[in-house]
Amino acid sequence: MLGAKIHRVAIAGGTHGNEFTGIYLVKKFQGYPDLVQRPSFETVPLLTNPQAFALKRRYAEQDLNRCFLPADLQSSTSTSYEALRAKELYQTLVAQPESKADFILDLHTTTANMGLTVILVNHHPFNLRLAAHLSAVNSAVKIYSAYQPGKTLAFLNSLCEFGFAIEVGAIAQGTLRADLFQRTEALIHTLLDYLDAANRNASPPVASSLTIYQHLRTVDYPKDEHGELLGMIHPRLQDQDYQPLHPGAPLFLTFDGDVICYEGDATVYPIFINEAAYYEKGIALCLTEQQTLEL
Amino acid sequence: MLGAKIHRVAIAGGTHGNEFTGIYLVKKFQGYPDLVQRPSFETVPLLTNPQAFALKRRYAEQDLNRCFLPADLQSSTSTSYEALRAKELYQTLVAQPESKADFILDLHTTTANMGLTVILVNHHPFNLRLAAHLSAVNSAVKIYSAYQPGKTLAFLNSLCEFGFAIEVGAIAQGTLRADLFQRTEALIHTLLDYLDAANRNASPPVASSLTIYQHLRTVDYPKDEHGELLGMIHPRLQDQDYQPLHPGAPLFLTFDGDVICYEGDATVYPIFINEAAYYEKGIALCLTEQQTLEL
Repeated sequence: MLGAKIHRVAIAGGTHGNEFTGIYLVKKFQGYPDLVQRPSFETVPLLTNPQAFALKRRYAEQDLNRCFLPADLQSSTSTSYEALRAKELYQTLVAQPESKADFILDLHTTTANMGLTVILVNHHPFNLRLAAHLSAVNSAVKIYSAYQPGKTLAFLNSLCEFGFAIEVGAIAQGTLRADLFQRTEALIHTLLDYLDAANRNASPPVASSLTIYQHLRTVDYPKDEHGELLGMIHPRLQDQDYQPLHPGAPLFLTFDGDVICYEGDATVYPIFINEAAYYEKGIALCLTEQQTLEL
Repeated sequence: MLGAKIHRVAIAGGTHGNEFTGIYLVKKFQGYPDLVQRPSFETVPLLTNPQAFALKRRYAEQDLNRCFLPADLQSSTSTSYEALRAKELYQTLVAQPESKADFILDLHTTTANMGLTVILVNHHPFNLRLAAHLSAVNSAVKIYSAYQPGKTLAFLNSLCEFGFAIEVGAIAQGTLRADLFQRTEALIHTLLDYLDAANRNASPPVASSLTIYQHLRTVDYPKDEHGELLGMIHPRLQDQDYQPLHPGAPLFLTFDGDVICYEGDATVYPIFINEAAYYEKGIALCLTEQQTLEL
């Protein structure tokens, strides 16, 4: 089913240096490598942005997880810490046969109430079946797809056909929550077991279809002509990630007390609602469409 | 009752640059000054650490809210941005008669589940009565006292006999939550109304006693000999700020799955559980004692 066997799995943590769950899971796996080894492949836990973690910030100079466009990886003009780190990671995870990864799992957290989310960067049938398996084992797992045909993505996961990110929340930057730590760890073990079974052509059967949340577009906060914030997520929308947002429903509450509503024609499913790191990106939430994919 | 009348109230926001609730309340009050004016005094909303807010970090070089020891304010050797800013604030809020504040309200947020908390830096009867009034109007308001007889505190509030901080949470750094924004704003209006009534010797009566949570000590995370984190807040303690912690109850869960329990002799009341900014300070939580003060 897989075509080529998986020989090496990279578990990346700290692609954003203030997302501690992945960082301390990677440190745990580095300290106890047996936990993530499986008979049919090697697992390499990897701290991807150590400088950002040292600073306890998302990044030192620029967002590492937007540095993986092929053109940027080949550019000799980009010299930020993260641009150089992306090139190192490309060498490690793609170019060098002795360290090349066949599957990349990138661990993230969010201040949005997204629970356990798989973030797909492509719709390879293997990734879809694995995602379906994870959500079958744990019904709280949601599948968000950032894939857009014809668009090249700049994520760490773009380096590898197999794999995806796991986004866990709600959790404040720079903190750990034991419940989310344990739920993320359990999800990783389910995933590694599936990969091991797939290598033996013994992957468990999955349902014939999969519900995903397909990225549509981002929505910015209300702002004045100088780019100053004029409002915040409406209290009725706060923490309602993956819940249907109907035309006319409230999106924002301005500081003056005015309500700004969703003016679209169709019901959508917002995610990344009130993600701290997205204030600077001009993203208050992402709108997605619920879709059913046949497997 | 007050001795001297209150002529000027300072509302400080952004003493920590990533605590947005106070910052955007101050910006709102700067845009609509009438909201916080009262007949008997002037109110000055003040962004206290603009450089930290520009960086969207707690501070640029050091924690501003630890820079207000008298010795540091007089020192000529401290040259960090925040040390200099503390001296400017001392000039504005204390030394210069034309801008001197008689009451300082300092607005903070926390990733701990502390709801609306008044943080006392002294036990002046006026502050205690005001705190009692706030908790009478809104029973969710808790009173935490950082006051320790004989110990000089380094907080912005240490500049002024009258006033205290308000700590609001749980909220992630670098975000706004409309519900907490509105509850904080309502608390400020109740406070300003009380000050105005007190200036007219017409303050509403308060109960004869007040429950406070008196600071005892801080507790650090479990760490190895290199200072590396070994665990996190136990899931049963997470978000349980102001709930009784009995001897033998779980405090931490290590990454290995071991439980570390509270070994004290007496029931205490933990607060600032899992505050993001306190990881670097070596504080996992603060233990307090519930006390009743006569008013």
